[in-house]
Amino acid sequence: MIGRLNHVGVATPSIAESVKLYRDVLGATQISAVKAMPEQGVNVCFVDLPNSQIELIEPLGEASPLHGFLAKNPSGGQHHVCFEVDDILAARDDMAAKGATVLNNGVPRIGAHGTPVIFVHPKNMGGVLVELMETPKGAHP
Amino acid sequence: MIGRLNHVGVATPSIAESVKLYRDVLGATQISAVKAMPEQGVNVCFVDLPNSQIELIEPLGEASPLHGFLAKNPSGGQHHVCFEVDDILAARDDMAAKGATVLNNGVPRIGAHGTPVIFVHPKNMGGVLVELMETPKGAHP
Repeated sequence: MIGRLNHVGVATPSIAESVKLYRDVLGATQISAVKAMPEQGVNVCFVDLPNSQIELIEPLGEASPLHGFLAKNPSGGQHHVCFEVDDILAARDDMAAKGATVLNNGVPRIGAHGTPVIFVHPKNMGGVLVELMETPKGAHP
Repeated sequence: MIGRLNHVGVATPSIAESVKLYRDVLGATQISAVKAMPEQGVNVCFVDLPNSQIELIEPLGEASPLHGFLAKNPSGGQHHVCFEVDDILAARDDMAAKGATVLNNGVPRIGAHGTPVIFVHPKNMGGVLVELMETPKGAHP
């Protein structure tokens, strides 16, 4: 079912500081503008690599789900892994049927790439918060 | 400097159990045999995705560096991110000159893909343990 590794989500207390790290120390050259995702309570910024992306995420607002993560990991750290799927509703139903816990009551949200996404609880995923994202139409020819 | 996202390293108490998860729940179809890496104190197994890999790692031996990680994360979790570089020694020297802490006193080891790798301490990398791996010659034409 899962297809491409779309991105690795990396939580940070400051996207601006992380951009310096990826640009000036690791030498990444393609870094997006910061985009606010108020519904998810995060700002996001993508570091483009030749085959995938790092998604930098920082808290947006007091109710951001990232505050808990950053309380445990003040410097930031790996937060989730995002795999592409062809059909988000089929993927959700398949995961739920196999006993996985789909967050947000299984209701997909529109993710940073403009297609629907779901998150699966780490307790069913070997400790990894898994995002499934519907592949953008026309992407990756 | 950094090129492809070669893999995401996922620590697990049991590769066998994680293989069931990636194969039977997430539906991955290309999963390698388990390979012992005694020098690193781990067994590894690769889940191939169309553009990248998940590297499942479990402890091998009592001195495995994974025991500490699994004590904090008994179910496993995201352990490191591996980026490809053209030249491991040039990358190491560049990272060290920029103040990063290269583990193993900066001495590369041969990684699971047969090319030299280094690890950079998370304290300099936004809380992310970063592996840099020399791109296999002839790979990714």
